[in-house]
Amino acid sequence: MAKTAGIIIIGNEVLSGKTQDINSHFFCTELRQLGVEVREITTIQDEIPLIGKEVAEFSERFDFVFTSGGIGPTHDDVTIEGIAQGFGVKVIRHPDIEARMRRRLGADLNEARLRMANVPEGATLLCADAPFAPIVQMRNVYVFPGIPKILQERFHSIKEQFRDAPYYLKNVYVRHGEGIIATMLNDLLVKFPQLMLGSYPVLDRPDYKVKVTLESKDQQYLTQALEAFVASLPKDGIQRID
Amino acid sequence: MAKTAGIIIIGNEVLSGKTQDINSHFFCTELRQLGVEVREITTIQDEIPLIGKEVAEFSERFDFVFTSGGIGPTHDDVTIEGIAQGFGVKVIRHPDIEARMRRRLGADLNEARLRMANVPEGATLLCADAPFAPIVQMRNVYVFPGIPKILQERFHSIKEQFRDAPYYLKNVYVRHGEGIIATMLNDLLVKFPQLMLGSYPVLDRPDYKVKVTLESKDQQYLTQALEAFVASLPKDGIQRID
Repeated sequence: MAKTAGIIIIGNEVLSGKTQDINSHFFCTELRQLGVEVREITTIQDEIPLIGKEVAEFSERFDFVFTSGGIGPTHDDVTIEGIAQGFGVKVIRHPDIEARMRRRLGADLNEARLRMANVPEGATLLCADAPFAPIVQMRNVYVFPGIPKILQERFHSIKEQFRDAPYYLKNVYVRHGEGIIATMLNDLLVKFPQLMLGSYPVLDRPDYKVKVTLESKDQQYLTQALEAFVASLPKDGIQRID
Repeated sequence: MAKTAGIIIIGNEVLSGKTQDINSHFFCTELRQLGVEVREITTIQDEIPLIGKEVAEFSERFDFVFTSGGIGPTHDDVTIEGIAQGFGVKVIRHPDIEARMRRRLGADLNEARLRMANVPEGATLLCADAPFAPIVQMRNVYVFPGIPKILQERFHSIKEQFRDAPYYLKNVYVRHGEGIIATMLNDLLVKFPQLMLGSYPVLDRPDYKVKVTLESKDQQYLTQALEAFVASLPKDGIQRID
Protein backbone atom coordinates (compact mmCIF):
# COMPACT_ATOMS: atom_id res chain seq x y z
CA MET A 1 0.00 0.00 0.00
CA ALA A 2 1.24 3.45 -0.90
CA LYS A 3 1.41 6.12 1.75
CA THR A 4 -1.62 8.40 1.38
CA ALA A 5 -2.08 12.15 1.54
CA GLY A 6 -4.87 14.70 1.67
CA ILE A 7 -4.60 18.37 0.71
CA ILE A 8 -6.60 21.21 2.26
CA ILE A 9 -6.65 24.52 0.39
CA ILE A 10 -7.88 27.30 2.66
CA GLY A 11 -9.05 30.54 1.14
CA ASN A 12 -12.08 32.52 0.06
CA GLU A 13 -9.95 33.99 -2.75
CA VAL A 14 -9.89 30.61 -4.50
CA LEU A 15 -13.61 29.92 -4.00
CA SER A 16 -14.58 33.39 -5.22
CA GLY A 17 -12.47 32.97 -8.36
CA LYS A 18 -10.06 35.80 -7.50
CA THR A 19 -7.08 33.46 -7.38
CA GLN A 20 -6.46 30.27 -9.30
CA ASP A 21 -5.12 27.62 -6.94
CA ILE A 22 -1.91 26.13 -8.32
CA ASN A 23 -0.71 24.73 -5.00
CA SER A 24 -2.83 21.59 -5.08
CA HIS A 25 -1.45 20.63 -8.49
CA PHE A 26 2.07 21.24 -7.22
CA PHE A 27 1.46 18.98 -4.21
CA CYS A 28 -0.16 16.28 -6.39
CA THR A 29 2.70 16.25 -8.88
CA GLU A 30 5.45 16.26 -6.25
CA LEU A 31 3.81 13.67 -4.01
CA ARG A 32 3.20 11.33 -6.93
CA GLN A 33 6.89 11.55 -7.83
CA LEU A 34 7.66 10.67 -4.21
CA GLY A 35 5.44 7.57 -4.46
CA VAL A 36 2.67 9.03 -2.27
CA GLU A 37 -1.00 8.65 -3.25
CA VAL A 38 -3.03 11.84 -2.92
CA ARG A 39 -6.55 10.66 -2.10
CA GLU A 40 -8.48 13.90 -1.78
CA ILE A 41 -8.28 17.67 -2.06
CA THR A 42 -10.72 19.96 -0.33
CA THR A 43 -10.96 23.71 -0.83
CA ILE A 44 -12.71 25.52 2.01
CA GLN A 45 -13.49 28.99 3.34
CA ASP A 46 -11.46 30.87 5.95
CA GLU A 47 -13.61 29.66 8.84
CA ILE A 48 -12.26 28.11 12.03
CA PRO A 49 -14.88 25.36 12.52
CA LEU A 50 -14.67 24.27 8.87
CA ILE A 51 -10.87 24.11 9.00
CA GLY A 52 -10.98 22.20 12.27
CA LYS A 53 -13.47 19.65 10.97
CA GLU A 54 -11.58 18.98 7.73
CA VAL A 55 -8.14 18.83 9.33
CA ALA A 56 -9.27 16.40 12.04
CA GLU A 57 -11.00 14.17 9.49
CA PHE A 58 -8.12 14.21 6.99
CA SER A 59 -5.61 13.55 9.77
CA GLU A 60 -7.50 10.36 10.64
CA ARG A 61 -7.94 9.19 7.07
CA PHE A 62 -4.53 9.87 5.52
CA ASP A 63 -0.87 9.38 6.40
CA PHE A 64 0.01 13.00 5.62
CA VAL A 65 -2.06 16.17 5.42
CA PHE A 66 -0.88 19.36 3.75
CA THR A 67 -2.63 22.69 4.23
CA SER A 68 -2.12 25.81 2.13
CA GLY A 69 -3.16 29.34 3.05
CA GLY A 70 -4.49 31.35 5.96
CA ILE A 71 -1.31 31.83 8.00
CA GLY A 72 -0.58 35.56 7.72
CA PRO A 73 -1.25 38.36 10.22
CA THR A 74 -4.74 39.47 9.12
CA HIS A 75 -8.34 38.74 10.14
CA ASP A 76 -8.80 36.03 7.49
CA ASP A 77 -5.72 34.06 8.56
CA VAL A 78 -7.29 31.50 10.85
CA THR A 79 -5.64 28.23 9.85
CA ILE A 80 -3.74 27.83 13.14
CA GLU A 81 -6.89 28.46 15.19
CA GLY A 82 -8.77 26.00 12.98
CA ILE A 83 -6.20 23.24 13.42
CA ALA A 84 -6.09 23.79 17.18
CA GLN A 85 -9.89 23.56 17.37
CA GLY A 86 -9.89 20.42 15.21
CA PHE A 87 -7.46 18.68 17.56
CA GLY A 88 -9.02 20.13 20.71
CA VAL A 89 -5.89 21.94 21.88
CA LYS A 90 -5.06 25.55 22.71
CA VAL A 91 -3.28 28.08 20.51
CA ILE A 92 0.03 29.09 22.10
CA ARG A 93 2.69 31.60 21.13
CA HIS A 94 5.82 29.67 20.17
CA PRO A 95 8.87 31.24 21.90
CA ASP A 96 11.32 30.32 19.11
CA ILE A 97 9.23 31.94 16.39
CA GLU A 98 8.59 35.01 18.55
CA ALA A 99 12.33 35.37 19.29
CA ARG A 100 13.16 35.08 15.60
CA MET A 101 10.56 37.74 14.73
CA ARG A 102 11.86 40.08 17.42
CA ARG A 103 15.39 39.78 16.02
CA ARG A 104 14.25 40.42 12.47
CA LEU A 105 11.59 43.10 12.98
CA GLY A 106 12.67 44.87 16.16
CA ALA A 107 10.42 47.82 16.87
CA ASP A 108 8.25 47.00 13.83
CA LEU A 109 6.91 43.90 15.57
CA ASN A 110 3.26 44.50 16.47
CA GLU A 111 0.36 42.42 17.77
CA ALA A 112 -0.89 41.56 14.28
CA ARG A 113 2.50 40.24 13.22
CA LEU A 114 2.90 38.32 16.47
CA ARG A 115 -0.10 36.23 15.44
CA MET A 116 2.32 34.55 13.04
CA ALA A 117 4.16 33.14 16.08
CA ASN A 118 1.01 31.25 17.11
CA VAL A 119 0.91 27.47 16.84
CA PRO A 120 -1.44 24.73 18.08
CA GLU A 121 -0.16 23.42 21.43
CA GLY A 122 1.98 20.37 20.77
CA ALA A 123 3.14 21.47 17.32
CA THR A 124 6.78 21.05 16.26
CA LEU A 125 8.80 23.26 13.93
CA LEU A 126 10.56 22.00 10.80
CA CYS A 127 13.49 23.82 9.15
CA ALA A 128 13.73 25.87 12.32
CA ASP A 129 17.12 27.23 11.21
CA ALA A 130 16.07 28.24 7.69
CA PRO A 131 16.13 31.93 6.76
CA PHE A 132 12.34 31.98 6.40
CA ALA A 133 9.67 31.16 8.98
CA PRO A 134 9.63 27.48 9.98
CA ILE A 135 7.03 24.96 8.81
CA VAL A 136 4.56 24.10 11.56
CA GLN A 137 3.84 20.40 11.94
CA MET A 138 0.91 19.31 14.10
CA ARG A 139 0.75 15.51 14.32
CA ASN A 140 0.64 14.43 10.63
CA VAL A 141 -0.48 17.85 9.39
CA TYR A 142 2.01 20.15 7.63
CA VAL A 143 1.04 23.82 7.46
CA PHE A 144 2.13 25.80 4.39
CA PRO A 145 1.62 29.43 3.34
CA GLY A 146 -0.60 30.12 0.34
CA ILE A 147 1.96 32.01 -1.74
CA PRO A 148 3.11 29.44 -4.33
CA LYS A 149 6.77 30.49 -4.50
CA ILE A 150 7.21 30.17 -0.73
CA LEU A 151 5.14 27.00 -0.49
CA GLN A 152 7.24 25.33 -3.16
CA GLU A 153 10.59 26.31 -1.64
CA ARG A 154 9.52 25.02 1.75
CA PHE A 155 8.10 21.78 0.42
CA HIS A 156 11.32 21.01 -1.44
CA SER A 157 13.27 21.55 1.77
CA ILE A 158 11.37 18.79 3.63
CA LYS A 159 10.02 16.48 0.93
CA GLU A 160 12.45 13.58 1.32
CA GLN A 161 10.81 12.54 4.57
CA PHE A 162 7.65 11.62 2.63
CA ARG A 163 9.35 9.41 0.02
CA ASP A 164 7.81 5.97 -0.53
CA ALA A 165 8.32 3.21 -3.14
CA PRO A 166 8.00 4.77 -6.62
CA TYR A 167 5.15 4.50 -9.11
CA TYR A 168 5.99 3.17 -12.57
CA LEU A 169 3.98 4.70 -15.40
CA LYS A 170 3.47 3.99 -19.10
CA ASN A 171 1.44 6.26 -21.37
CA VAL A 172 -0.07 4.67 -24.48
CA TYR A 173 -1.40 7.08 -27.12
CA VAL A 174 -4.19 5.28 -28.95
CA ARG A 175 -5.61 6.17 -32.37
CA HIS A 176 -9.08 4.75 -31.60
CA GLY A 177 -11.72 6.46 -29.47
CA GLU A 178 -12.83 5.40 -25.99
CA GLY A 179 -16.01 3.88 -27.39
CA ILE A 180 -13.89 1.34 -29.25
CA ILE A 181 -11.19 0.57 -26.67
CA ALA A 182 -13.42 0.48 -23.58
CA THR A 183 -13.83 -3.29 -23.93
CA MET A 184 -10.06 -3.83 -24.09
CA LEU A 185 -9.62 -1.69 -20.99
CA ASN A 186 -12.22 -3.70 -19.09
CA ASP A 187 -10.60 -6.98 -20.17
CA LEU A 188 -7.22 -5.69 -19.09
CA LEU A 189 -8.52 -4.92 -15.59
CA VAL A 190 -9.95 -8.42 -15.30
CA LYS A 191 -6.47 -9.85 -15.97
CA PHE A 192 -4.60 -7.18 -13.98
CA PRO A 193 -6.94 -6.10 -11.18
CA GLN A 194 -4.18 -4.26 -9.29
CA LEU A 195 -3.30 -2.08 -12.28
CA MET A 196 -4.02 1.64 -12.02
CA LEU A 197 -5.55 2.32 -15.40
CA GLY A 198 -6.61 5.70 -16.75
CA SER A 199 -8.27 6.64 -20.03
CA TYR A 200 -8.25 10.27 -21.15
CA PRO A 201 -9.86 11.33 -24.41
CA VAL A 202 -8.14 14.15 -26.25
CA LEU A 203 -9.86 16.60 -28.60
CA ASP A 204 -8.22 18.29 -31.55
CA ARG A 205 -5.26 15.94 -31.96
CA PRO A 206 -5.01 14.47 -35.45
CA ASP A 207 -2.59 11.70 -34.44
CA TYR A 208 -4.34 10.03 -31.46
CA LYS A 209 -7.69 10.08 -29.66
CA VAL A 210 -7.06 8.67 -26.19
CA LYS A 211 -4.14 8.71 -23.79
CA VAL A 212 -4.23 5.52 -21.75
CA THR A 213 -2.12 5.45 -18.59
CA LEU A 214 -0.97 2.20 -16.98
CA GLU A 215 0.59 2.50 -13.56
CA SER A 216 1.85 0.26 -10.77
CA LYS A 217 4.38 0.16 -7.97
CA ASP A 218 5.41 -3.28 -9.30
CA GLN A 219 7.51 -2.74 -12.43
CA GLN A 220 7.19 -6.33 -13.67
CA TYR A 221 3.43 -6.29 -13.26
CA LEU A 222 3.30 -3.07 -15.27
CA THR A 223 5.42 -4.58 -18.07
CA GLN A 224 3.14 -7.59 -18.29
CA ALA A 225 0.02 -5.44 -18.31
CA LEU A 226 1.45 -3.18 -21.01
CA GLU A 227 2.25 -6.20 -23.21
CA ALA A 228 -1.26 -7.57 -22.75
CA PHE A 229 -2.86 -4.19 -23.56
CA VAL A 230 -0.75 -3.64 -26.68
CA ALA A 231 -1.57 -7.15 -27.91
CA SER A 232 -5.31 -6.48 -27.44
CA LEU A 233 -5.40 -3.38 -29.64
CA PRO A 234 -6.02 -3.42 -33.39
CA LYS A 235 -2.91 -3.24 -35.58
CA ASP A 236 -1.64 0.32 -36.06
CA GLY A 237 -3.82 1.32 -33.11
CA ILE A 238 -0.94 2.86 -31.20
CA GLN A 239 0.55 6.23 -32.09
CA ARG A 240 3.33 5.92 -29.49
CA ILE A 241 4.21 4.71 -25.99
CA ASP A 242 6.29 6.66 -23.49
CA MET B 1 -28.15 35.49 1.50
CA ALA B 2 -26.48 34.56 -1.74
CA LYS B 3 -27.32 31.30 -3.43
CA THR B 4 -24.61 28.77 -2.63
CA ALA B 5 -22.79 26.17 -4.68
CA GLY B 6 -20.42 23.25 -4.20
CA ILE B 7 -18.14 21.77 -6.85
CA ILE B 8 -17.10 18.12 -7.06
CA ILE B 9 -14.12 17.29 -9.29
CA ILE B 10 -14.01 13.57 -9.99
CA GLY B 11 -10.83 12.04 -11.31
CA ASN B 12 -7.69 10.14 -10.37
CA GLU B 13 -5.88 12.05 -13.13
CA VAL B 14 -6.13 15.26 -11.11
CA LEU B 15 -5.09 13.66 -7.80
CA SER B 16 -2.12 11.88 -9.40
CA GLY B 17 -0.91 15.13 -10.95
CA LYS B 18 -1.38 13.96 -14.56
CA THR B 19 -3.92 16.68 -15.28
CA GLN B 20 -4.20 20.15 -13.81
CA ASP B 21 -7.83 20.85 -12.95
CA ILE B 22 -8.95 24.12 -14.55
CA ASN B 23 -12.67 23.37 -14.30
CA SER B 24 -13.07 24.36 -10.67
CA HIS B 25 -11.56 27.80 -11.33
CA PHE B 26 -13.87 28.22 -14.32
CA PHE B 27 -16.91 27.36 -12.19
CA CYS B 28 -15.75 29.67 -9.35
CA THR B 29 -15.21 32.62 -11.68
CA GLU B 30 -18.44 32.17 -13.59
CA LEU B 31 -20.59 31.54 -10.53
CA ARG B 32 -19.17 34.59 -8.75
CA GLN B 33 -20.09 36.72 -11.76
CA LEU B 34 -23.59 35.26 -11.53
CA GLY B 35 -23.81 36.30 -7.86
CA VAL B 36 -23.52 32.73 -6.54
CA GLU B 37 -21.26 31.92 -3.57
CA VAL B 38 -19.09 28.81 -4.07
CA ARG B 39 -18.65 27.38 -0.56
CA GLU B 40 -16.51 24.32 -1.18
CA ILE B 41 -14.65 22.30 -3.80
CA THR B 42 -13.80 18.67 -3.31
CA THR B 43 -11.60 16.60 -5.59
CA ILE B 44 -12.10 12.86 -5.23
CA GLN B 45 -11.15 9.54 -6.78
CA ASP B 46 -13.22 7.63 -9.36
CA GLU B 47 -14.97 5.48 -6.76
CA ILE B 48 -18.72 4.98 -6.56
CA PRO B 49 -19.16 5.14 -2.74
CA LEU B 50 -16.98 8.28 -2.47
CA ILE B 51 -18.89 10.02 -5.23
CA GLY B 52 -22.20 9.01 -3.68
CA LYS B 53 -21.26 10.27 -0.25
CA GLU B 54 -19.97 13.64 -1.47
CA VAL B 55 -22.84 14.28 -3.86
CA ALA B 56 -25.49 13.48 -1.24
CA GLU B 57 -23.78 15.70 1.34
CA PHE B 58 -23.19 18.62 -1.04
CA SER B 59 -26.76 18.36 -2.33
CA GLU B 60 -28.03 18.87 1.23
CA ARG B 61 -25.66 21.72 2.08
CA PHE B 62 -25.73 23.86 -1.07
CA ASP B 63 -28.31 25.26 -3.47
CA PHE B 64 -26.46 23.98 -6.53
CA VAL B 65 -23.89 21.22 -7.02
CA PHE B 66 -21.71 20.90 -10.09
CA THR B 67 -19.73 17.77 -10.90
CA SER B 68 -16.96 17.46 -13.46
CA GLY B 69 -15.56 14.24 -14.90
CA GLY B 70 -16.23 10.54 -14.95
CA ILE B 71 -19.04 10.36 -17.54
CA GLY B 72 -17.42 8.61 -20.52
CA PRO B 73 -17.72 5.00 -21.68
CA THR B 74 -14.78 3.43 -19.83
CA HIS B 75 -14.23 1.55 -16.58
CA ASP B 76 -13.24 4.69 -14.63
CA ASP B 77 -16.38 6.62 -15.62
CA VAL B 78 -18.57 5.97 -12.59
CA THR B 79 -20.07 9.38 -11.81
CA ILE B 80 -23.63 8.36 -12.77
CA GLU B 81 -23.44 5.20 -10.65
CA GLY B 82 -22.03 7.26 -7.77
CA ILE B 83 -24.81 9.85 -7.91
CA ALA B 84 -27.46 7.13 -8.09
CA GLN B 85 -25.96 5.40 -5.05
CA GLY B 86 -25.75 8.69 -3.16
CA PHE B 87 -29.47 9.34 -3.71
CA GLY B 88 -30.48 5.70 -3.23
CA VAL B 89 -31.97 5.30 -6.72
CA LYS B 90 -31.31 2.94 -9.64
CA VAL B 91 -29.32 3.66 -12.78
CA ILE B 92 -31.58 3.52 -15.82
CA ARG B 93 -30.92 3.85 -19.54
CA HIS B 94 -32.53 7.07 -20.76
CA PRO B 95 -34.53 6.40 -23.93
CA ASP B 96 -33.98 9.89 -25.41
CA ILE B 97 -30.20 9.71 -25.05
CA GLU B 98 -30.13 6.17 -26.41
CA ALA B 99 -32.26 7.16 -29.43
CA ARG B 100 -29.99 10.11 -30.12
CA MET B 101 -26.90 7.89 -29.93
CA ARG B 102 -28.46 5.32 -32.26
CA ARG B 103 -29.18 8.02 -34.85
CA ARG B 104 -25.66 9.42 -34.64
CA LEU B 105 -23.58 6.24 -34.32
CA GLY B 106 -25.70 3.60 -36.08
CA ALA B 107 -23.81 0.31 -36.23
CA ASP B 108 -20.89 1.79 -34.26
CA LEU B 109 -23.01 1.93 -31.11
CA ASN B 110 -21.73 -0.70 -28.65
CA GLU B 111 -22.35 -1.62 -25.04
CA ALA B 112 -19.51 0.59 -23.76
CA ARG B 113 -20.87 3.65 -25.55
CA LEU B 114 -24.40 2.87 -24.40
CA ARG B 115 -23.20 3.44 -20.82
CA MET B 116 -23.26 7.13 -21.74
CA ALA B 117 -27.06 6.86 -22.00
CA ASN B 118 -27.27 5.89 -18.33
CA VAL B 119 -28.75 8.33 -15.80
CA PRO B 120 -29.87 8.09 -12.17
CA GLU B 121 -33.59 7.33 -12.06
CA GLY B 122 -35.48 10.60 -11.75
CA ALA B 123 -32.90 12.69 -13.59
CA THR B 124 -33.95 15.29 -16.13
CA LEU B 125 -32.11 16.41 -19.27
CA LEU B 126 -31.12 20.00 -20.01
CA CYS B 127 -30.41 21.29 -23.52
CA ALA B 128 -31.99 18.11 -24.82
CA ASP B 129 -32.08 19.56 -28.35
CA ALA B 130 -28.46 20.74 -28.44
CA PRO B 131 -26.06 19.12 -30.93
CA PHE B 132 -24.02 17.57 -28.11
CA ALA B 133 -25.12 15.18 -25.39
CA PRO B 134 -27.55 16.76 -22.90
CA ILE B 135 -26.63 17.85 -19.39
CA VAL B 136 -27.97 15.46 -16.77
CA GLN B 137 -29.63 17.15 -13.78
CA MET B 138 -30.42 15.05 -10.71
CA ARG B 139 -32.26 17.16 -8.12
CA ASN B 140 -29.90 20.15 -7.58
CA VAL B 141 -26.86 18.34 -9.05
CA TYR B 142 -25.62 19.24 -12.54
CA VAL B 143 -23.36 16.67 -14.19
CA PHE B 144 -20.62 17.96 -16.50
CA PRO B 145 -17.92 16.21 -18.53
CA GLY B 146 -14.31 16.71 -17.51
CA ILE B 147 -13.03 18.07 -20.83
CA PRO B 148 -12.78 21.83 -20.22
CA LYS B 149 -13.86 22.99 -23.67
CA ILE B 150 -17.07 20.94 -23.55
CA LEU B 151 -17.75 21.76 -19.91
CA GLN B 152 -17.46 25.48 -20.61
CA GLU B 153 -19.72 25.43 -23.67
CA ARG B 154 -22.38 23.53 -21.80
CA PHE B 155 -22.20 25.70 -18.71
CA HIS B 156 -22.63 28.86 -20.79
CA SER B 157 -25.72 27.35 -22.40
CA ILE B 158 -27.54 26.96 -19.04
CA LYS B 159 -25.91 29.48 -16.71
CA GLU B 160 -28.66 32.11 -16.66
CA GLN B 161 -30.87 29.86 -14.51
CA PHE B 162 -28.35 30.25 -11.65
CA ARG B 163 -28.18 34.06 -11.69
CA ASP B 164 -28.61 35.80 -8.33
CA ALA B 165 -28.14 39.41 -7.11
CA PRO B 166 -24.63 40.56 -8.14
CA TYR B 167 -21.56 41.03 -5.98
CA TYR B 168 -19.94 44.46 -5.99
CA LEU B 169 -16.15 44.45 -5.66
CA LYS B 170 -13.44 47.03 -5.07
CA ASN B 171 -9.73 46.20 -5.14
CA VAL B 172 -7.41 48.48 -3.17
CA TYR B 173 -3.69 48.12 -3.91
CA VAL B 174 -1.85 49.13 -0.75
CA ARG B 175 1.81 50.14 -0.48
CA HIS B 176 2.14 48.90 3.13
CA GLY B 177 2.55 45.28 4.18
CA GLU B 178 -0.05 43.14 5.93
CA GLY B 179 1.75 43.50 9.25
CA ILE B 180 1.03 47.25 9.16
CA ILE B 181 -2.53 47.28 7.79
CA ALA B 182 -3.87 44.29 9.76
CA THR B 183 -5.16 46.64 12.46
CA MET B 184 -7.03 48.79 9.93
CA LEU B 185 -8.60 45.69 8.44
CA ASN B 186 -9.77 44.49 11.84
CA ASP B 187 -11.21 47.92 12.66
CA LEU B 188 -12.99 47.99 9.32
CA LEU B 189 -14.69 44.67 10.06
CA VAL B 190 -15.86 45.95 13.44
CA LYS B 191 -17.61 48.85 11.67
CA PHE B 192 -18.75 46.81 8.66
CA PRO B 193 -19.30 43.25 9.90
CA GLN B 194 -21.18 42.18 6.75
CA LEU B 195 -18.29 43.20 4.48
CA MET B 196 -16.45 40.44 2.64
CA LEU B 197 -12.86 41.52 3.13
CA GLY B 198 -9.80 39.85 1.65
CA SER B 199 -6.11 40.64 2.07
CA TYR B 200 -3.59 39.15 -0.35
CA PRO B 201 0.11 39.89 -0.01
CA VAL B 202 2.01 40.17 -3.30
CA LEU B 203 5.71 39.40 -3.72
CA ASP B 204 7.99 41.04 -6.27
CA ARG B 205 5.84 44.09 -7.03
CA PRO B 206 7.68 47.37 -6.51
CA ASP B 207 4.52 49.50 -6.47
CA TYR B 208 2.30 47.79 -3.88
CA LYS B 209 2.51 45.05 -1.24
CA VAL B 210 -1.06 43.95 -0.57
CA LYS B 211 -4.20 43.71 -2.65
CA VAL B 212 -7.19 44.30 -0.38
CA THR B 213 -10.58 43.25 -1.72
CA LEU B 214 -13.83 44.72 -0.39
CA GLU B 215 -17.00 43.04 -1.54
CA SER B 216 -20.73 43.18 -0.84
CA LYS B 217 -24.05 42.56 -2.51
CA ASP B 218 -25.09 46.00 -1.16
CA GLN B 219 -23.47 48.66 -3.32
CA GLN B 220 -24.03 51.51 -0.85
CA TYR B 221 -22.59 49.50 2.04
CA LEU B 222 -19.52 48.78 -0.11
CA THR B 223 -19.07 52.46 -0.93
CA GLN B 224 -19.24 53.42 2.75
CA ALA B 225 -16.79 50.68 3.72
CA LEU B 226 -14.37 51.72 0.99
CA GLU B 227 -14.45 55.34 2.18
CA ALA B 228 -13.80 54.26 5.76
CA PHE B 229 -10.91 52.01 4.74
CA VAL B 230 -9.25 54.66 2.56
CA ALA B 231 -9.56 57.22 5.39
CA SER B 232 -7.89 54.79 7.81
CA LEU B 233 -4.74 54.29 5.72
CA PRO B 234 -1.63 56.47 5.96
CA LYS B 235 -1.32 59.22 3.35
CA ASP B 236 0.07 57.94 0.03
CA GLY B 237 -0.68 54.42 1.24
CA ILE B 238 -2.75 53.54 -1.80
CA GLN B 239 -1.22 52.75 -5.17
CA ARG B 240 -4.60 52.52 -6.91
CA ILE B 241 -8.22 51.40 -6.57
CA ASP B 242 -10.17 49.55 -9.22
